[in-house]
Amino acid sequence: MTTGQTQRVRVLLIGAGNVGRRFLGLVDSKGPALRERLGLDLVLVGIADSSGVAVNPEGLPIQEIANLKSAGQSVAEHPRWGDRRGSALEMVRSQSADLLLEASPANMEDGQPAMACIEAALSSGMHVVTANKAPLVLAFPRLVELARANGVQLRYDATVTGGLPAVNLGQRDLAAAKIERLEGVLNLTTNYILTRMAQDGLSYEQALADAQDAGHAETNPTLDVEGWDAANKLVILAHSVLGFPVGLDDVDVTGILGVSDETLRAAAAEGKRVKLVATAEADGEGYRLSVRPKRLAAEHPLAQLGPKQMGIVYHTDISGSISAAIVEETPVPTAFAMLRDVVEIYASGGRA
Amino acid sequence: MTTGQTQRVRVLLIGAGNVGRRFLGLVDSKGPALRERLGLDLVLVGIADSSGVAVNPEGLPIQEIANLKSAGQSVAEHPRWGDRRGSALEMVRSQSADLLLEASPANMEDGQPAMACIEAALSSGMHVVTANKAPLVLAFPRLVELARANGVQLRYDATVTGGLPAVNLGQRDLAAAKIERLEGVLNLTTNYILTRMAQDGLSYEQALADAQDAGHAETNPTLDVEGWDAANKLVILAHSVLGFPVGLDDVDVTGILGVSDETLRAAAAEGKRVKLVATAEADGEGYRLSVRPKRLAAEHPLAQLGPKQMGIVYHTDISGSISAAIVEETPVPTAFAMLRDVVEIYASGGRA
Repeated sequence: MTTGQTQRVRVLLIGAGNVGRRFLGLVDSKGPALRERLGLDLVLVGIADSSGVAVNPEGLPIQEIANLKSAGQSVAEHPRWGDRRGSALEMVRSQSADLLLEASPANMEDGQPAMACIEAALSSGMHVVTANKAPLVLAFPRLVELARANGVQLRYDATVTGGLPAVNLGQRDLAAAKIERLEGVLNLTTNYILTRMAQDGLSYEQALADAQDAGHAETNPTLDVEGWDAANKLVILAHSVLGFPVGLDDVDVTGILGVSDETLRAAAAEGKRVKLVATAEADGEGYRLSVRPKRLAAEHPLAQLGPKQMGIVYHTDISGSISAAIVEETPVPTAFAMLRDVVEIYASGGRA
Repeated sequence: MTTGQTQRVRVLLIGAGNVGRRFLGLVDSKGPALRERLGLDLVLVGIADSSGVAVNPEGLPIQEIANLKSAGQSVAEHPRWGDRRGSALEMVRSQSADLLLEASPANMEDGQPAMACIEAALSSGMHVVTANKAPLVLAFPRLVELARANGVQLRYDATVTGGLPAVNLGQRDLAAAKIERLEGVLNLTTNYILTRMAQDGLSYEQALADAQDAGHAETNPTLDVEGWDAANKLVILAHSVLGFPVGLDDVDVTGILGVSDETLRAAAAEGKRVKLVATAEADGEGYRLSVRPKRLAAEHPLAQLGPKQMGIVYHTDISGSISAAIVEETPVPTAFAMLRDVVEIYASGGRA
């Protein structure tokens, strides 16, 4: 993959939360391996969080930036490169860079400010890697076309199942197959809750509190437990893997709030497990999409998933049924999925 | 992925057995989709089996060739394009083509005649896709270097777990991660036998006979049941995914002949399953490699595999533990893995 030469890649990062901070850590710890084995020298030239930016065209000191975040401060507090008046969008518009990494919180209303940042980056010839689902769910075809028109890549493997390359597997490895049915446990929070309720006899409230303590659930878990996070991911899979352009309105969504202890006990008594399953089922020229709790037979590949797992199954015409799963204890694998996308962009020569 | 233009790819195929015949079927049935969706027009310009060749620079009639094989005849019997005096190697040397597909039986002694055919193809600037393990196990570094020196690609995803892209997953999606442990159920025959013995109470002899009837075992199952087929695949994974150059001699191999009904019953009584597991365990700068029957806890991702499944688990430093499995009822997914490699060669622009 390496040509013997090292390629300097100037990176802008938006978002320094759970995923963004881990990404900084990976660039720091994996820097030597990336340079030596893959010929990539990633240089962070700008970073934005919700309070401002830090920018240096020669490269920011990653460890110092990471220390600020660990101390609960903004990157804008950096004594030399920080700027409290700067915004992510201004940074993207004004800085020369090769690649934008978007890891800010998903705003499902209008995708902002990520949407504008991604558009600005693509339009000015930067590749974009996003872990943020919102812009894709709201404007997948438009963003893909914008990338194509500008001869750059837009990658988003981190948006669907964290470190599990579910998009890559479907989009690339199954490109010549027809996917007849896709089934996924795409949301970690709800799988954690249902699995702990079923395995350990916790109540919904206990399981949710545990998930929150362990960092596997947001303070406001509504999007997760009502099924919308899984639906967002299913929409991204529909566009990217199934070639089927849909919106959230096209997904029939039921969350896990109606799943009682009793439901779980009854299922267990029959040797079954209840999971929140996102499904796309071929139907004529298109697919029927749903997210809902399902009773799965014990031998179903998704039935076996533990509380910290997500997984996907592709039932195909000519490649059998392929299942894949990940054990994801922390957000590190999701940050790694962004790094994987970066590596793939340059391994593929950076062509759109 | 498509540029709006269709690329004509002239293909030579060696081997018209279980996999080669299925490949012909896929080219036939998927031809329109390959052209329309992926911009690839695959034209079979030559095919070799053990009795001769059929060659036509303008393209062979795939259906007629397939009919010959279905009728138990050689491709050399084709009335117009067949040649009983032709050999695979002569065909590769004399025909203009873009791509060689190698699907002849594995000769673990010296890899011939596949080895010479692959060398000739790479040397003359053809890409090579092989489902034949032998040349890779015997000469991986040399063949990879030959491809690189000639600016072409050598791909072999079909050699390891049929339609499951285990090589792709490790080589590409985990390129920036460290694989700390790899575990795989890489051999379908032994997994079929052990699973049927454990689940259905069959004796070894019954299970083997069943596997042979179902086309999941060779008439001579020695390579499979003694663990060497799994070891071959582990050697290919070591080279390609782990970057660790080894030979068969470096793998500690124990087959399934010592696994008795009693062993299986005792394991089941403790809620465990016995599988033939290929393992690579990080050890200093390298890996320790083994193939042997192991008792796996029920929640181990490989414990759950049914009789027609293979699977792999990558335990990594920064991407959690990723497992993947396939249900493979026929050799179609293995033929599909060759097609996938062909698609990837052209999706990546055909660069080495």
